[in-house]
Amino acid sequence: MVLDRWYAQLKNSDTLFNSLTDEQLKKEFAPGRNRGIYLLGHLIAVHDDMMVLLNFGDKLYPELNEPFIKQPDKATKNIPTAKELRTYWTRQNEIMTAKINAVTTDEWFTKHTAVSEGDFAKEPHRNRLNIMITRTSHLSYHLGQLTLLKP
Amino acid sequence: MVLDRWYAQLKNSDTLFNSLTDEQLKKEFAPGRNRGIYLLGHLIAVHDDMMVLLNFGDKLYPELNEPFIKQPDKATKNIPTAKELRTYWTRQNEIMTAKINAVTTDEWFTKHTAVSEGDFAKEPHRNRLNIMITRTSHLSYHLGQLTLLKP
Repeated sequence: MVLDRWYAQLKNSDTLFNSLTDEQLKKEFAPGRNRGIYLLGHLIAVHDDMMVLLNFGDKLYPELNEPFIKQPDKATKNIPTAKELRTYWTRQNEIMTAKINAVTTDEWFTKHTAVSEGDFAKEPHRNRLNIMITRTSHLSYHLGQLTLLKP
Repeated sequence: MVLDRWYAQLKNSDTLFNSLTDEQLKKEFAPGRNRGIYLLGHLIAVHDDMMVLLNFGDKLYPELNEPFIKQPDKATKNIPTAKELRTYWTRQNEIMTAKINAVTTDEWFTKHTAVSEGDFAKEPHRNRLNIMITRTSHLSYHLGQLTLLKP
């Protein structure tokens, strides 16, 4: 059910991104707020962090951490194009989906990589499934904003 | 973990609503979009539906279905005040929290009230826990919009 929700929100995001032109993605979703392109980069960077937390391997796009997580929108002009970010997004989802599908039920309840064995023994909810739950929430939050880019 | 996420997003919503004046709540979160007061009423109406789906009893505020789910914002002037909606929100959360806390782990995996026994046998994910998962997603989505009301 948790994974269903993740995939459903990824699909909703895909549908939305595909309905928007690059020009529309470059607009702010509301006056003075983040641009669509920033939120797209932000989501890729946050999902890249999940790759590490879920023990799936290295980040695919570590260079996105600085401009899309550490820095706010418009702090630098040195970011990938909308077209490039779309490609990253699609490739990342393909790779993550393959990794997610290979995780067994029991493995979802094992610890994520940012919690120590000692802390995990006391707080067993800090597991890999919880990463999916909190990041689906994060995706939904920004999806509520990205939808404002639709004319 | 699912319930933790629900409570965390309710708490985030509470913090946000408490930081906003009634005047701010009456504004659109972006030009031409829904007013904060509409989204507050919408959330109460959707959570009231959960009361029925989760077999917790009758809706607390059935009169909110028409103006906050069936109708779009500004379709009618006949809606409760911001002050009244804040009271409904708080009371609803208190009542729902008590009901949620009384549900056992096994009961979360029993069917919700909108699915038949026959369909549930084929689709066991249509259970009460899934209602929590999808509605947390819904709450997160609108929270991403409500946060734009902050000056």
